[in-house]
Amino acid sequence: MAARVTPAIILVRPQLGENIGKVARAMGNFGLEDLRLVKPRDGWPNPDAVPAAAGADWLLEKAQVFETLEAAIADCHDVYATTARRRDMIKPVQTPREIAVHMGGAGKVGILFGAEAAGLTNDEVALASTIISFPCNPAFSSFNLAQAVFLVAYEWFLAGAGEQQPFSLYESAVADRGELIGLLEQLEEELDRSGFLRPAEKRPQMVRNIRNIFTRMALTSQEVRTLRGIVKSLAVYGRSRSKPGKV
Amino acid sequence: MAARVTPAIILVRPQLGENIGKVARAMGNFGLEDLRLVKPRDGWPNPDAVPAAAGADWLLEKAQVFETLEAAIADCHDVYATTARRRDMIKPVQTPREIAVHMGGAGKVGILFGAEAAGLTNDEVALASTIISFPCNPAFSSFNLAQAVFLVAYEWFLAGAGEQQPFSLYESAVADRGELIGLLEQLEEELDRSGFLRPAEKRPQMVRNIRNIFTRMALTSQEVRTLRGIVKSLAVYGRSRSKPGKV
Repeated sequence: MAARVTPAIILVRPQLGENIGKVARAMGNFGLEDLRLVKPRDGWPNPDAVPAAAGADWLLEKAQVFETLEAAIADCHDVYATTARRRDMIKPVQTPREIAVHMGGAGKVGILFGAEAAGLTNDEVALASTIISFPCNPAFSSFNLAQAVFLVAYEWFLAGAGEQQPFSLYESAVADRGELIGLLEQLEEELDRSGFLRPAEKRPQMVRNIRNIFTRMALTSQEVRTLRGIVKSLAVYGRSRSKPGKV
Repeated sequence: MAARVTPAIILVRPQLGENIGKVARAMGNFGLEDLRLVKPRDGWPNPDAVPAAAGADWLLEKAQVFETLEAAIADCHDVYATTARRRDMIKPVQTPREIAVHMGGAGKVGILFGAEAAGLTNDEVALASTIISFPCNPAFSSFNLAQAVFLVAYEWFLAGAGEQQPFSLYESAVADRGELIGLLEQLEEELDRSGFLRPAEKRPQMVRNIRNIFTRMALTSQEVRTLRGIVKSLAVYGRSRSKPGKV
């Protein structure tokens, strides 16, 4: 597969440096590299961004600043606008998950995020081909800027990673069936002695129920040994404490 | 279709009220309703939570506070633990998207989030059946607490918003955590008596290993009763057959 061109995260008139830092952190979490700022209110660089970036300093350092949105998107092959409010515009509306697949292509995609309070103006949205709308509880839909970036970046990452997991399950040695059956036979032998598997006509179903419990566990060899130790310990203890005079 | 039971978001020893407020906001964004706090460091209610909740006050007001994690999960039918670090435990590891489909069933699911800095302890993780791992850039994987909740809540919301819901794995009577903990405590009590959990300095690790085995099984209530019967039977069975003259 060809390398994916990372989309540009374009903050239009962002206000608080802290929020720009949080955006950088979210980008870093999901491997985005291209941060662009259009007319940041408090200038740039902004020292308030650094602690909020929580270590994603490299993204702050290479952030590009633009005087106009037009300049910021000049090299983009497609532009999406994020917006919470309904717009009177005829544009396709898609979710972050839907657009994530389009961001994997060869052309640069720019994604616009408006100022913290007011969002994008209609003129700014008009420069985009598509509106990104965030699925959420319609009765409580206020996202902050960094969360909106976070979701877009997350979906971009997953679309490329194929839900790759940072570490895998069941890596240590699962016991083979021989070990497991050894445990089951030991347990059943002790339960025959203790009288648990009575009456005889119910024994087959009881044994089946017990085997169902232990066979679906994917026990490791070590865990089989632990369970064998437990069965032995309980059985021996049961015998010893019922010796005359001990109880 | 039956209504989906909303999962419980369980914050274990959360530190900053501000972060609890942000968690409430993220829950409100995606329609989650059940917030639980285990030993919040600064007590509860915490005035710092209110501005950060950005209007999700109703979730703060009905948050439940617990002294122990065991009490907080007592009514849960399944428990997931979120963790960034690798653990030496044999548990399935799934992403928020993978687990979202299981959260739509009839049983209450509890999702554990550790304290801001240190996360969950191994003892706490041992009470969960499954580990939730967040797909992200492995070179920059630090999430804050609210972002972790945000992603889980987002995936839960999307899983339910889809036109078709996968049927639940958990429609049969999976034991709740109270029943499971009852079994574990009974087993540990008998193993203390029998001497299995010695020496004392190894006891915590041994208990953790045993809990890891039984928490990942999704035991039914009937199976919990069977296992309790097995433990009891093994622990007492010598009584009758070691009577004088019988052996």
